Amino acid sequence: MASRDIMRSTTRGFKKYYSPNVMGELRLDTNTNVLGSNPAATRYLREQKVDLNEYPVTYSDDLRAALASLYGLEMDNFVVGSGSDEILDISFKTFTEWGDSCLVPYPSYSLYDYFAQMNGGSVVISELTEDFQLDVDDIVSSKAKIVIAATPNNPTGNSFRQKDIEDLLARFKGVVIVDEAYGEYSDLSMIPRVNEFDNMIVVRTFSKAYAMAALRVGYGVANKDIAEMMNSVKIPYSLNSLSEGAAIAAVGDQDFIRKSKDMILAERPKLVSGLEKLGFRPYPSDSNFILAVSPIDHANLTKALRKRGILIRDFGSKRRMENCVRFTVGTDEMNRSLLSAIEDILRDGN
Amino acid sequence: MASRDIMRSTTRGFKKYYSPNVMGELRLDTNTNVLGSNPAATRYLREQKVDLNEYPVTYSDDLRAALASLYGLEMDNFVVGSGSDEILDISFKTFTEWGDSCLVPYPSYSLYDYFAQMNGGSVVISELTEDFQLDVDDIVSSKAKIVIAATPNNPTGNSFRQKDIEDLLARFKGVVIVDEAYGEYSDLSMIPRVNEFDNMIVVRTFSKAYAMAALRVGYGVANKDIAEMMNSVKIPYSLNSLSEGAAIAAVGDQDFIRKSKDMILAERPKLVSGLEKLGFRPYPSDSNFILAVSPIDHANLTKALRKRGILIRDFGSKRRMENCVRFTVGTDEMNRSLLSAIEDILRDGN
Repeated sequence: MASRDIMRSTTRGFKKYYSPNVMGELRLDTNTNVLGSNPAATRYLREQKVDLNEYPVTYSDDLRAALASLYGLEMDNFVVGSGSDEILDISFKTFTEWGDSCLVPYPSYSLYDYFAQMNGGSVVISELTEDFQLDVDDIVSSKAKIVIAATPNNPTGNSFRQKDIEDLLARFKGVVIVDEAYGEYSDLSMIPRVNEFDNMIVVRTFSKAYAMAALRVGYGVANKDIAEMMNSVKIPYSLNSLSEGAAIAAVGDQDFIRKSKDMILAERPKLVSGLEKLGFRPYPSDSNFILAVSPIDHANLTKALRKRGILIRDFGSKRRMENCVRFTVGTDEMNRSLLSAIEDILRDGN
Repeated sequence: MASRDIMRSTTRGFKKYYSPNVMGELRLDTNTNVLGSNPAATRYLREQKVDLNEYPVTYSDDLRAALASLYGLEMDNFVVGSGSDEILDISFKTFTEWGDSCLVPYPSYSLYDYFAQMNGGSVVISELTEDFQLDVDDIVSSKAKIVIAATPNNPTGNSFRQKDIEDLLARFKGVVIVDEAYGEYSDLSMIPRVNEFDNMIVVRTFSKAYAMAALRVGYGVANKDIAEMMNSVKIPYSLNSLSEGAAIAAVGDQDFIRKSKDMILAERPKLVSGLEKLGFRPYPSDSNFILAVSPIDHANLTKALRKRGILIRDFGSKRRMENCVRFTVGTDEMNRSLLSAIEDILRDGN
């Protein structure tokens, strides 16, 4: 048997990524768009006539041009990849040396550690403050070469204060990755300001509000020098032609994004108050999901909901999220089903 | 302006990858399948009903199962990725430490250097012998931790001797990547033997014989321990659902692959003899392309063919390939057009 001793020292402990076996359950665990597949992308795919035998355009110029036009920036402010995961990977490959540490706030997205270690780095944690905001002084005093801050933050759901992000960009000596995976649900974004900073990369995905997780498309936005460095490190034509074409179509349909955001803004307060009535303590959210302390045991709740055909995400065994679960905000109908299922569970005990 | 000093030291010299602007020319420069888009993949895409809002299966299990059945191996012998490029990237991330050197034969595929350096490594060259075969003693005496050998080799076209590859696997202390990007055109493959070796990864692509370059699908085959290590380092669900579905359909249509290979086996000798008649000196090929010394200046030939709507690849300024150009073997009709265009150029001088 081949021993793991032959592996890169920083990856030797890696395990395969968790993914549940699903069988038609209502998925309120992934924070994708509950309105369903992106309609413009679906239409594009039905009608596309891509020559499968031809390589994509090396740096996905057409998609970069579409994004530039959406944001009033230039194509050369963008790096696109196979999911925002690839953008994170490229960031580490471009801006870190072996052993450099990456600062990751806690609680945050668990895969950040993996990207740092996969690329020979280590992880330094900075605790978020009690209200889940950045502790800028703590981050600045670290020796990290790169910081990743997700805003809105996952799994807590809140945005970081804009002035803290600005403060961080001004005082932190390394590269700051601002992960706006749920940015479409928030009014705050650092994208309009990329040209002001020499050390910022904003990351976005088509997997959440854009409802295209199956197609793996993500992008980074930065000033042109930073974006050029990243493009020169990125694997040429890593994004396939169909996903690129579908993403261009989706960028052209901002109505769907507005409709999706409006739905969340309408439903989220109703779900929050429904959960509160059942004894949950929800944290403030600027995104399409809600982290909440459960009135009953987190694992029992998650299991009992699964039995009733509803998947949620359980964080209750994690530090600072004791007994917490995370709900994707659904449509009015989905949220009613969820609340009614929880009511049953609270009554029956399982 | 942000300086490149902030980049990883091994990537600081990277430039964007060359890609010609094409305008409907006959492409005999990319070694893709001249029979056109993969038909089974095209049919699949026309009829697919993928829910775009759903993440792909994390490790593309259905495609791995289809490949396992094609080769009589197990699903856990496979790692799939967004192009064989991702498999190369994963190999470096999994099996090299910072500064480790990667041995690359010369002449070979130019992007290997880039994958090594992108991942913090350096490159050591081993010259191929005069007949473009591996110099196993030279490779074994190097201090490299990883070797990449493409067979059939690109751009030379020949396969390496099976006994040299076996010898290399037995004597080289690190990981051996056998890149069979053109393996469908050859009768030799190391895939049936993956379970014999603890240090071999065979790499294949859907971009060449499978005629699906637009979809970016590649895979690695190795013994189950090695494949498991690579899967645990690979970015989860890096392969999008449509490309996976199309690849499964394509694996199921081996007739297309056989037809493609038969066409090359029939046309290649005719193209070789046509080129010889015009004064070229072609090297032996086991793949769908031919490297040949041009009877006139390589750059002039390439330019004059482009003017006539035919793209070929110019290697004539590279060491050991002085005045060489590379032709993808086309259909009978394409090859006649090519030879007749060259005849004109030889007569008119441009």
